[in-house]
Amino acid sequence: MPKNVMEQLIPFFQPKSVAVIGASRNPTKSGYVVLENFVKFGFKGRVYPINPEADEILGVKAYPSVKEVPDEIDLAVIVLSALAVPKVMLDCAEKHVKCAVIISGGFGEVGEEGTKREREVKEIIQKSGIRVIGPNCMGVVDTATKVNTMFLPAQHFSRPEKGNIGFISQSGAFGLTMIDYLAGEGIGISKFASYGNKIDVDESELLKYFSQDPETKVILMYIEAIDDGKKFIEVAKKVTKLKPVIGLKAGRTAAGSKAVISHTGALSGAFSIYKGAFSQAGIIPADTVQELVDIGKAFSYQPYAKGNRTAIITGGGGYGVLASDACETMGLQVASLGDTTIKNMRMSFPPHYVVINPVDLTGDASEGDYKTALALTLEDQNVDGVIMIILFQVPRLEETIIDAISETTHRLHDKPVIVSSIGGEHTKKMVRKMEARKIPVYPTPERAVKVMAALVEYGKYVSETTLSALK
Amino acid sequence: MPKNVMEQLIPFFQPKSVAVIGASRNPTKSGYVVLENFVKFGFKGRVYPINPEADEILGVKAYPSVKEVPDEIDLAVIVLSALAVPKVMLDCAEKHVKCAVIISGGFGEVGEEGTKREREVKEIIQKSGIRVIGPNCMGVVDTATKVNTMFLPAQHFSRPEKGNIGFISQSGAFGLTMIDYLAGEGIGISKFASYGNKIDVDESELLKYFSQDPETKVILMYIEAIDDGKKFIEVAKKVTKLKPVIGLKAGRTAAGSKAVISHTGALSGAFSIYKGAFSQAGIIPADTVQELVDIGKAFSYQPYAKGNRTAIITGGGGYGVLASDACETMGLQVASLGDTTIKNMRMSFPPHYVVINPVDLTGDASEGDYKTALALTLEDQNVDGVIMIILFQVPRLEETIIDAISETTHRLHDKPVIVSSIGGEHTKKMVRKMEARKIPVYPTPERAVKVMAALVEYGKYVSETTLSALK
Repeated sequence: MPKNVMEQLIPFFQPKSVAVIGASRNPTKSGYVVLENFVKFGFKGRVYPINPEADEILGVKAYPSVKEVPDEIDLAVIVLSALAVPKVMLDCAEKHVKCAVIISGGFGEVGEEGTKREREVKEIIQKSGIRVIGPNCMGVVDTATKVNTMFLPAQHFSRPEKGNIGFISQSGAFGLTMIDYLAGEGIGISKFASYGNKIDVDESELLKYFSQDPETKVILMYIEAIDDGKKFIEVAKKVTKLKPVIGLKAGRTAAGSKAVISHTGALSGAFSIYKGAFSQAGIIPADTVQELVDIGKAFSYQPYAKGNRTAIITGGGGYGVLASDACETMGLQVASLGDTTIKNMRMSFPPHYVVINPVDLTGDASEGDYKTALALTLEDQNVDGVIMIILFQVPRLEETIIDAISETTHRLHDKPVIVSSIGGEHTKKMVRKMEARKIPVYPTPERAVKVMAALVEYGKYVSETTLSALK
Repeated sequence: MPKNVMEQLIPFFQPKSVAVIGASRNPTKSGYVVLENFVKFGFKGRVYPINPEADEILGVKAYPSVKEVPDEIDLAVIVLSALAVPKVMLDCAEKHVKCAVIISGGFGEVGEEGTKREREVKEIIQKSGIRVIGPNCMGVVDTATKVNTMFLPAQHFSRPEKGNIGFISQSGAFGLTMIDYLAGEGIGISKFASYGNKIDVDESELLKYFSQDPETKVILMYIEAIDDGKKFIEVAKKVTKLKPVIGLKAGRTAAGSKAVISHTGALSGAFSIYKGAFSQAGIIPADTVQELVDIGKAFSYQPYAKGNRTAIITGGGGYGVLASDACETMGLQVASLGDTTIKNMRMSFPPHYVVINPVDLTGDASEGDYKTALALTLEDQNVDGVIMIILFQVPRLEETIIDAISETTHRLHDKPVIVSSIGGEHTKKMVRKMEARKIPVYPTPERAVKVMAALVEYGKYVSETTLSALK
């Protein structure tokens, strides 16, 4: 990868000027929604709607062609039918546009004619040096600069909030549902890129770019097929030493690979090869969509774990059992608490509380009891991370427990704290408030434990790679 | 089990008269909440608060002792400290109370003194013949008769809605979170029983009772330890021929079993034994809390599957790939659609839709396209069940798709339809409306496929047991 590649990608995320080619006056059209994203939601750069039939759209002066815009164009967003794309790409090349996102589908994924069209565009790219994301993609989102090329109507789609998760998705459909889901859950993202047919910018370049982004703490990837595996492993190896990368590989089975071919025409490759590549590159594999977002949230809010010794604190004995089962199943050790911890709990708590791990504070526990148990286990040198299973249904637990837990967690911020809570309206409200304080919450104990196992896995990887670098 | 046992349990769920022993005037106390449940929410029987210091509570005349009530008592709910329980149980025996729920903790689970107390109560039970659920439990809920002994404050806890899921939980804490969760999701239950220390009524009796309950279509069980395994298998074998039973066994690992001991003092037994017992009895094992409720919801709303050939319909190609992967991983076959189905889809749809399985209707699909694809696959003799992954974010999909899908699903009601949709506020709203029409929805394709696998597993069990009965 040439040295200046990272600089070449900057205009995708921090453009000073944007042309929306195919901007529309019709609010039901993608070309309207994309323009609206740039006009109404805080984007600070200059915006130029391109539409030969309009003088202005959304109060902004429109131009018949990108060539007529009396300004340099950093980023062109192309929202036109595939047939029109080669022509406007020529215009973009002539105008010396730096980057273009081609949203339009109708290329390599739809057979021969599309493939021919894709080749045409590729030639223009090669000649002009213009960098392209897409075609057949959802494009990019940057919650800092407010770049957003997603064309989904606001009444169906939640606007992404600012956060530290970087999301790279080969599939646009998968990406859009995840962005909507995360926004709906109040989980912020830093950047998003869906690269579709990747006729130019690919997953390796995006991964590298995200790794250098100071707003991004953790990177999630959805991958169907990687063309240049060697390059990917080389890049990923470096990235995972800086930031955790969680990867979901689709097309892992014979049935899945067959579906990839009818989806994008790509060959997804044997899963064993990807498994090996992920492992070699230090990418944490997600087996399911749930795992991808669950683990992403944990890394977004919490530090990784420096070992696998896990303390469990609960108000419901049954949940202590379930969490212990899950720990053993997923390779975590139910920590043996230190004598001082046990003695201090014994002194602080009524006799019917169980003060060995899993700690059972019963339905009688107050917020103070939870706080004490959390502080003592976090201070315990035999503990690397804490899972709390809180039953917000019980009468004594008031909302103030959230302050208590958040304070204790973030005061001793070198060990991860993961919470599990499940219930109805009240519990959901409490969960949202907890997560607003950067304490990740999962409905079931098994999902909380799975996430802790990922924090442990990354901790182990970091310590091993650091050690081997010291040798 | 004596023949009349089932009749003996009737007063727990259909009592004509209830005494709340330990009824309180203080709204923060359990004794108030339990009384309120019977007074305010449609229970049709007679209610008697028992409290020596009150003339009336919540507008109902109170009595100093159950013995003073000038009426027969079908059900006593005891909400007093453990110390007071033996005395009031003697009163109940003298009064010929038929059934009692002992909510109070402080028995076998808290050491020697508690065990002694438990023995005292056991003796009273044996002498009097009174049937007891508990102690140390949440008791019972019946959404038809409005019996509800759960003492959780309304502002923390959602009131269970009427439905067809029967829930049996050894752990009260686990049970209460599940009931709250199901209510919060709009998923109804028929009956709930948490049996705690089970000094009298046990899981086998409850299971049999639930199996004969016409309101109950599927039974979920949370189990830590079964004392009489032989009896349980014998009962469960009969029940599973009538209704699906999903079982979550806690204490499956060494760490989990250790936690069971500190939770209830019980020995949970080797998991391999439970695994064998579940399999022998035809119980569908849930490996996680998520699976338990996910699978429960599917059986509640949909028929079981008569084979494993699964059609996948989606608007996002990536999701088709993920669902195909999950099918192969979980033993389902991605169905080869019949020629007529493919031909009819080809005729109905634009050329860029993919009409082999997984069917990809792309982001352009209208509700009519979904309806057509669903009807054609349901009618296809090569298909046993359909998984639809719907992206409610796309512009063209309006709320009316819910009617379209619901109509088609329930018109051909012998094959299960499972939906997967994930997203923000709009999608959540659509999901609730879909589930109100008895179409179960899961956020991720893997969870949808897991549930389909359970519907297939039960279908196979039913067909095998029916066949063996015919031999």
